[in-house]
Amino acid sequence: MSVVIKDLSAHIGESVALEGWVETTRSHGKVAFLILRDGTGVVQGVVLKKAVDDATWEAHGSLTQESTARVVGRVKQDDRAPGGFEVEVESLEVMALAEEYPIQPKEHGVDFLLDHRHLWLRSSQQRAGLKVRSEVQQAIHDFFYRRDFTRIDTPILTGSIGEHAGTLFETDYFGDPAYMAQTGQLYVEAACPAFRNVYCFGPTFRAEKSKTRRHLTEFWMVEPEVAFADSEDNMRLQEEFVSYLVERALENCAEELKVLERDTSKIDHVKPPFPRLSYTDAVARLTERGHDVTWGDDLGASDEAVLTEDYDLPLFIYNYPKEAKAFYMKENPDDPRTVLCDDLLAPEGYGEIIGGSQREDDLERLRERIREEKLPEEAYAWYLDLRRYGSFPHSGFGLGVERTVAWITGRHHIRELIPFPRLMNRLYP
Amino acid sequence: MSVVIKDLSAHIGESVALEGWVETTRSHGKVAFLILRDGTGVVQGVVLKKAVDDATWEAHGSLTQESTARVVGRVKQDDRAPGGFEVEVESLEVMALAEEYPIQPKEHGVDFLLDHRHLWLRSSQQRAGLKVRSEVQQAIHDFFYRRDFTRIDTPILTGSIGEHAGTLFETDYFGDPAYMAQTGQLYVEAACPAFRNVYCFGPTFRAEKSKTRRHLTEFWMVEPEVAFADSEDNMRLQEEFVSYLVERALENCAEELKVLERDTSKIDHVKPPFPRLSYTDAVARLTERGHDVTWGDDLGASDEAVLTEDYDLPLFIYNYPKEAKAFYMKENPDDPRTVLCDDLLAPEGYGEIIGGSQREDDLERLRERIREEKLPEEAYAWYLDLRRYGSFPHSGFGLGVERTVAWITGRHHIRELIPFPRLMNRLYP
Repeated sequence: MSVVIKDLSAHIGESVALEGWVETTRSHGKVAFLILRDGTGVVQGVVLKKAVDDATWEAHGSLTQESTARVVGRVKQDDRAPGGFEVEVESLEVMALAEEYPIQPKEHGVDFLLDHRHLWLRSSQQRAGLKVRSEVQQAIHDFFYRRDFTRIDTPILTGSIGEHAGTLFETDYFGDPAYMAQTGQLYVEAACPAFRNVYCFGPTFRAEKSKTRRHLTEFWMVEPEVAFADSEDNMRLQEEFVSYLVERALENCAEELKVLERDTSKIDHVKPPFPRLSYTDAVARLTERGHDVTWGDDLGASDEAVLTEDYDLPLFIYNYPKEAKAFYMKENPDDPRTVLCDDLLAPEGYGEIIGGSQREDDLERLRERIREEKLPEEAYAWYLDLRRYGSFPHSGFGLGVERTVAWITGRHHIRELIPFPRLMNRLYP
Repeated sequence: MSVVIKDLSAHIGESVALEGWVETTRSHGKVAFLILRDGTGVVQGVVLKKAVDDATWEAHGSLTQESTARVVGRVKQDDRAPGGFEVEVESLEVMALAEEYPIQPKEHGVDFLLDHRHLWLRSSQQRAGLKVRSEVQQAIHDFFYRRDFTRIDTPILTGSIGEHAGTLFETDYFGDPAYMAQTGQLYVEAACPAFRNVYCFGPTFRAEKSKTRRHLTEFWMVEPEVAFADSEDNMRLQEEFVSYLVERALENCAEELKVLERDTSKIDHVKPPFPRLSYTDAVARLTERGHDVTWGDDLGASDEAVLTEDYDLPLFIYNYPKEAKAFYMKENPDDPRTVLCDDLLAPEGYGEIIGGSQREDDLERLRERIREEKLPEEAYAWYLDLRRYGSFPHSGFGLGVERTVAWITGRHHIRELIPFPRLMNRLYP
């Protein structure tokens, strides 16, 4: 009977068949070992020469790293074994011998590992990081589903240009130019009058010439949009959402976080409310500490790092100057130099994981901002329609999946938290 | 207290505040009505002139279609009312007056409606169809999560060209050409040795010059891949999966299916096993019925329609000729002219919703097929590596979201089952 390694506890004393990949083998005269990985776990098999036929003994001897094998054996509880079980091999069949495996347990350069990303995925830390990503993604869907949000898939191919005109990937669309979406936000706004609370979840694209550890040209984003919500409601939703994602990872990925050597005491208290600091107060605090920052400037990564040092929770910085932010953000009635928005900065130097705002719902003020930013008004005609036909207060935000998972797992480079990273100089595999 | 319409049953006799969009108003001397939609439901408000102040009476008189309003009133059970409730208005405030709404309850041409897709979303049938889509998407994630599949996001920007070289969208990637992915399959195969069972879910792209009711240039696909599964296992997974999606829609979208006038007796018996017909038997049956089809040809839409007429369940056609199918499908050992694959055809003429296959796991045979198809071998070097380092039997499939939801909801055009359809001549809004 074929079973998987993670279910071995239900088969103690039974003879079972396992199929998987051989991580290592060793042999000491009349006893030999193999470590088998089947994608659900890892287990040690023990082969006694006297207990198996020659074919099995020879098969074991022929195994190379990452060969595929089918092992039949008896399951034994063994608290010293990794995973708590061992398999006493009765027979072993080679399904496919592997050529010499390129990734060895020594230090490879990152370019080599990224060139072999299709194989590097099999390494324990990469598996652990991507397993947390998968759990966090399901948690994202569960969070919004349970709160009656309707999922709205927004288009990737668009005629309008989104936020950052200089960093667009362009393609020929049957003779017309099309751009790969940088955000789904404008489109989810259109769905609010149909469904009230909505969200999109998908890949987004930035043709940025950045080589930092926090940039990808292709990354995944979740963007909820809530009708009749103001900027305060928006921040409350963000802190509940982020806390839920952390909770789910802690609950269902304890093993993976251990493999990643994540100090979970840094995240196990992440619960609402999160601290809040206005942009203006943030600038004052930075100036106090000798930072050279002028009111009106956007905050840089080093500014953010200093501000978050004071907190062991994610930190909201809210109400930035209008010039530092996107055209669709609502003017702050109490201080029209600023807009009603927030950035959520993760602790431990992980930086921005969310950008959110209340949206400008005044037709004339929005049109003015589009003109000020010199955006092509025609491409936004449909977006302006949303203010023409039943305008409404609404707010939303975008959370970057890779940055969030990098923080939760404590990994330095976000490129490890996406299965096949796309970087400025990397399109393969 | 602000509530939403779908929760009114918990507030009978109470005075509540509702915010939403005005679908219609009418007035008969001293009593007036409005239909309010808030994205969670629709309710009728009744305004008695003698019961409200002048401001509210005048506000009602000023309301135009799709204006945004805030209504305070008492909730009354009324079995004759749509939804079962009515609101006796105590006060009414106009939040934003709408200009003359372009979509009127008369027949608009489809181009007009698609030009106004950002508003058309608000219509009851469009809302219903997209709500079913959202439910089916959550069901997709739940199905695989509960079966311990790991979600693997595959890249959109790729250097390799996928299945159909002639129908690719291309972009400039920092000086090199990149193509928008037509499938994530090759990449999920790479993740099997790490996670065993995996799936991807995301948008895919075809630059096809097709204008049928079954084609989009951008559509969403779910693609599971299962290690150590053969073609038989694969078809079993498909029928369980599709049955689950139908079940979830029936369970949680009864109201939406009613709005769409879907005859649910056509789908309420969709449960495994589904009927199976080999390609060879299918050709024999078609020939019997006078169709001009030769063994070796792919089946056309009219062939498929005739074959599915005999069944009220989805129908598997399996083991097509090698030439009609993609290079990565495994040669059938019992008949090497064919490959181990299946198409799943929905009943009622909805056609193919799934394509699946066992994958070629023999390095030499796979390389040969890549050469036969004149594909650039270098771009597939990493894919061949998967057969070099621990090859393994595996199978998977791709299910098209829009086609599946079109069948479940009984809609003719798949363009209505995606929020912002992309067609050959449509990139706006």
